[in-house]
Amino acid sequence: MSLIVTGTIGIDTVHTPSGSAEDIPGGSCAYFAAAASCYTPTRVVAAVGDDWPEDHKTLLESFPGLDLAGLEIRGGSKTFRWGGKYLENMNDRETLFTDIGVLGEAPPEIPASFQDSEVVFLANTHPAVQRGFLDHLPARKFTVADTMDLWINTAREDLVSLLGAIDGLVINDSEALLLTEERNPFAAARVIMDMGPRVVVIKKGEHGAVLVSGDDVAVLPAFPADETQVVDPTGCGDSFAGGFMGWIASRGSWAFPDLQAAMAWGTISASFTLGAFALEGLRGLSMDHLEQRMACFQAAARVGDPSAVRS
Amino acid sequence: MSLIVTGTIGIDTVHTPSGSAEDIPGGSCAYFAAAASCYTPTRVVAAVGDDWPEDHKTLLESFPGLDLAGLEIRGGSKTFRWGGKYLENMNDRETLFTDIGVLGEAPPEIPASFQDSEVVFLANTHPAVQRGFLDHLPARKFTVADTMDLWINTAREDLVSLLGAIDGLVINDSEALLLTEERNPFAAARVIMDMGPRVVVIKKGEHGAVLVSGDDVAVLPAFPADETQVVDPTGCGDSFAGGFMGWIASRGSWAFPDLQAAMAWGTISASFTLGAFALEGLRGLSMDHLEQRMACFQAAARVGDPSAVRS
Repeated sequence: MSLIVTGTIGIDTVHTPSGSAEDIPGGSCAYFAAAASCYTPTRVVAAVGDDWPEDHKTLLESFPGLDLAGLEIRGGSKTFRWGGKYLENMNDRETLFTDIGVLGEAPPEIPASFQDSEVVFLANTHPAVQRGFLDHLPARKFTVADTMDLWINTAREDLVSLLGAIDGLVINDSEALLLTEERNPFAAARVIMDMGPRVVVIKKGEHGAVLVSGDDVAVLPAFPADETQVVDPTGCGDSFAGGFMGWIASRGSWAFPDLQAAMAWGTISASFTLGAFALEGLRGLSMDHLEQRMACFQAAARVGDPSAVRS
Repeated sequence: MSLIVTGTIGIDTVHTPSGSAEDIPGGSCAYFAAAASCYTPTRVVAAVGDDWPEDHKTLLESFPGLDLAGLEIRGGSKTFRWGGKYLENMNDRETLFTDIGVLGEAPPEIPASFQDSEVVFLANTHPAVQRGFLDHLPARKFTVADTMDLWINTAREDLVSLLGAIDGLVINDSEALLLTEERNPFAAARVIMDMGPRVVVIKKGEHGAVLVSGDDVAVLPAFPADETQVVDPTGCGDSFAGGFMGWIASRGSWAFPDLQAAMAWGTISASFTLGAFALEGLRGLSMDHLEQRMACFQAAARVGDPSAVRS
């Protein structure tokens, strides 16, 4: 099924204990799309300014699965910029600066050729903007959104309206707590399901993820990354969502076993993003690379066989 | 293979957001032994005072797999007592009081009938005491210890000596960081392996556990417990170790696939302890109960099948 993503493409400056990188490709949409495109053709809807570096464009064009017909380069506008610094634990970070630029203008338009998209991911942006995209996607069959603490705190009404109109929400554990006041992830997911989505995925960073859909529950650890494989966590959540949705679109199914498998593929995609700055970990990835790492993950995350009991 | 555990049997007072319980059975050895005895006969070596409540004794005697020949009830001595309060997040706790009582006296003796024990667990106590037990266990083939921040801070030399004499260490993530100064669990495990143990298990509470042995790595999430199944985390780590070692002793093997399966059984045992105060969650547990929950865990923690790719 056709997959479309709307969200931010930006220019990041990132400091981690492993090193620093200035003016690198970033943004939720970029990470999602790069990850998803390994699994299935992915349509991109985003806006950047005319300061967007040529080599960032060349990089995105190098992902063969990306359709950039919905990428607007606006004359006179500035690209979204974000700078952040990760603490020693690689989990907590502080934002050094945010220049919203083009994100303060009208949202990008969904090209007519994308309006038959069936699987939709609304990467993090203002929930009213996310909601607005849905009016231009009449063929959508499975729509999932991400959000963040900023919108939970400042635009809760718009977020609640969005939740009533989508099929799934992908959210961090700290954001799930903020939204629901439930610390237990399964309790938090039930509260969110009561607000609309049939599928809730709660991301726990280095501790993995949980998925709840109706009475079904799935839990996964993160990919076992040693210290050499932890370079830059920026975009890991978006890459997780990209692998998750890319797999679902490639299968054309969101039955529970496919959701559960999708969560594992999201984990694999995120592990590649974690291992390098920007999109470097995802660049040139083939399905063979993903399958090799999946085989390692399955070996490491195997749950003991109860048939062996009493033997 | 015969399994023996040495450690603390105490009287706990616990406050959690779910409720409070006073003067309930506790101690690392009690939780470990109760959990392990579901898998294999378990020999207990511990000392209590003559203030130890009769109903605590009756409770331990009700676990059919426990051999209490090494349990000393000392006239004129006081049983170890601990009081703690869990914060709203159920992960952090503060100690309200500790009366070490009999733990300040000579350690219990290992009965002659226990000296042929092959699988040994040294539950948390002073590492010099743990080390001392080994001299009386000449038949030991697989010895694992637990420790805590107190001994890492105050008895590091004794702990290092112990690590050089054992096969495995089971430790919390915060303790692993304290011991090794490595935040990444796989890096921390390598540092610990350099100190002696061939097997390192790092427990992450609600986030599961990781196991490292040589170049092999295993990762598991915790059992997906909703808010009704999270009553009292006291003893969950010890119950995890009990399930882990109980399974290993029942198999008579610590080859990597058995270690990995053992980690899953430890997870299941801990989930029963979590669901009630004291040993109530483990009381009357049959292998059928454990297998039923393992089947749920395997369904929830299933890693997507890569054979389905491109289908």
